[in-house]
Amino acid sequence: MKPLIVKLGGSVVTDKRKPFLVKRKDLKRLAGELKAAKGPLIVVHGGGSFGHPLALKYKIADGYTGKNQLMGMSLTHRAMILLNSYVVEALQNADIPAIGVQPSSSTVLINGRIKSMDIGPIRMMLALGLVPVLYGDVVSDVKKGVKILSGDQIVSYLARRLGASKVIVGVDVDGVYADDPKGNKKSEILKKITPDDARLVASLGAAGTQDVTGGMRNKVLELLDLARLGIEAEIVNASKPNVLRGAIRGKNVLGTKVCGGS
Amino acid sequence: MKPLIVKLGGSVVTDKRKPFLVKRKDLKRLAGELKAAKGPLIVVHGGGSFGHPLALKYKIADGYTGKNQLMGMSLTHRAMILLNSYVVEALQNADIPAIGVQPSSSTVLINGRIKSMDIGPIRMMLALGLVPVLYGDVVSDVKKGVKILSGDQIVSYLARRLGASKVIVGVDVDGVYADDPKGNKKSEILKKITPDDARLVASLGAAGTQDVTGGMRNKVLELLDLARLGIEAEIVNASKPNVLRGAIRGKNVLGTKVCGGS
Repeated sequence: MKPLIVKLGGSVVTDKRKPFLVKRKDLKRLAGELKAAKGPLIVVHGGGSFGHPLALKYKIADGYTGKNQLMGMSLTHRAMILLNSYVVEALQNADIPAIGVQPSSSTVLINGRIKSMDIGPIRMMLALGLVPVLYGDVVSDVKKGVKILSGDQIVSYLARRLGASKVIVGVDVDGVYADDPKGNKKSEILKKITPDDARLVASLGAAGTQDVTGGMRNKVLELLDLARLGIEAEIVNASKPNVLRGAIRGKNVLGTKVCGGS
Repeated sequence: MKPLIVKLGGSVVTDKRKPFLVKRKDLKRLAGELKAAKGPLIVVHGGGSFGHPLALKYKIADGYTGKNQLMGMSLTHRAMILLNSYVVEALQNADIPAIGVQPSSSTVLINGRIKSMDIGPIRMMLALGLVPVLYGDVVSDVKKGVKILSGDQIVSYLARRLGASKVIVGVDVDGVYADDPKGNKKSEILKKITPDDARLVASLGAAGTQDVTGGMRNKVLELLDLARLGIEAEIVNASKPNVLRGAIRGKNVLGTKVCGGS
């Protein structure tokens, strides 16, 4: 049975205004909404105020440049483990048998893209009925020494390898805007993006200052790779109650679909 | 360059009398002693009062028997992540760039023994100068569904695959006794155990009531596999100050050597 893959963005599960601030109430609510998933489920979350400030400070997105980054990798990874533990705990409290899965234990990158990832253990966890919970991580890179592996890339990789039934990307805005909604109040949500919309995608906002993984444009690019394979994705506002639940149930919620076209 | 592999037993890093009680002072001291390692280093720790009580409660060592174990796997793994985070933090505080490595992300078992483990990421971490910190874990098993992978088995597997320079197993007794030291005060520490000592090994104490991974006998059996390959191991009392440091420096400390013979 094909898994549903749900991404919880860093700004959904953490408060980006302050380092190491987890949104406990939202996590509790989201765990409840995830119970709407009836089949196999994988959760992937971003780094938010846990991973990004440290990754920026130690310039990990630039690749390995010197020994002074080693402690930065160590601290960034431990911060992500801590956030992952909060997410897993919230799921456990909602009676979901979640199990953290560390990407950097099983993945090697090449120029920031996944070269290999051992997904055997994830397949077996799913078969047992566990819910793997992965996260953006600091990962070894054969060309760069080390790079950041974004949660978004994990989502698209797993969706491809496992043949996801559907991908839902939870963010803290109502969907994809043609312009950055925080700069331009009048822009409207795009109902649908397809592989034919290349020019539109190029115009999307790139990384915010605190985001080392590429912001909305990168998310959409990852999801378009899936759309070409016939795997449908939906970008929805997981910060608003019941939106994620609705999307899981297949209801027509506010958001942006990224799919194969027409 | 071949890595040194140091095991920190569950009773060294946790107080087994009470669940979730970490020995912070000892961890701080041990992190300082580990700084004596001058080349590549891997640390592996046991479950102690974090992993074992939960693994016992949910009978995870028996393999998968029913859905009621799923939450047990989830809780046991998160407990181990928490302990791992304490160990990594202590190493960070001693200026060692430690990085937790989750065995269950990259390992599949068959009847409780490692069938495959992706060690590419560990090799790359070592090459960068990071110190991977692994731990006993709840791991998928192709025959049993799930099993406990002991820190001891991880130690012997990694030592074999990576060709360890040496293995040091830190426990809370002065070495291996012919009889259980807690039952028989008069027994003496064995200076050396070799593959010729099969009968002696069979007489060693097996698992204690709280240990789901097989106690001293299993440790020695894992290390004898290495001795046959010419990889020397030493079982020392890491609960006593400066013993681990001495062993790392190659001094003749109190303990039991497990090696190839004569």
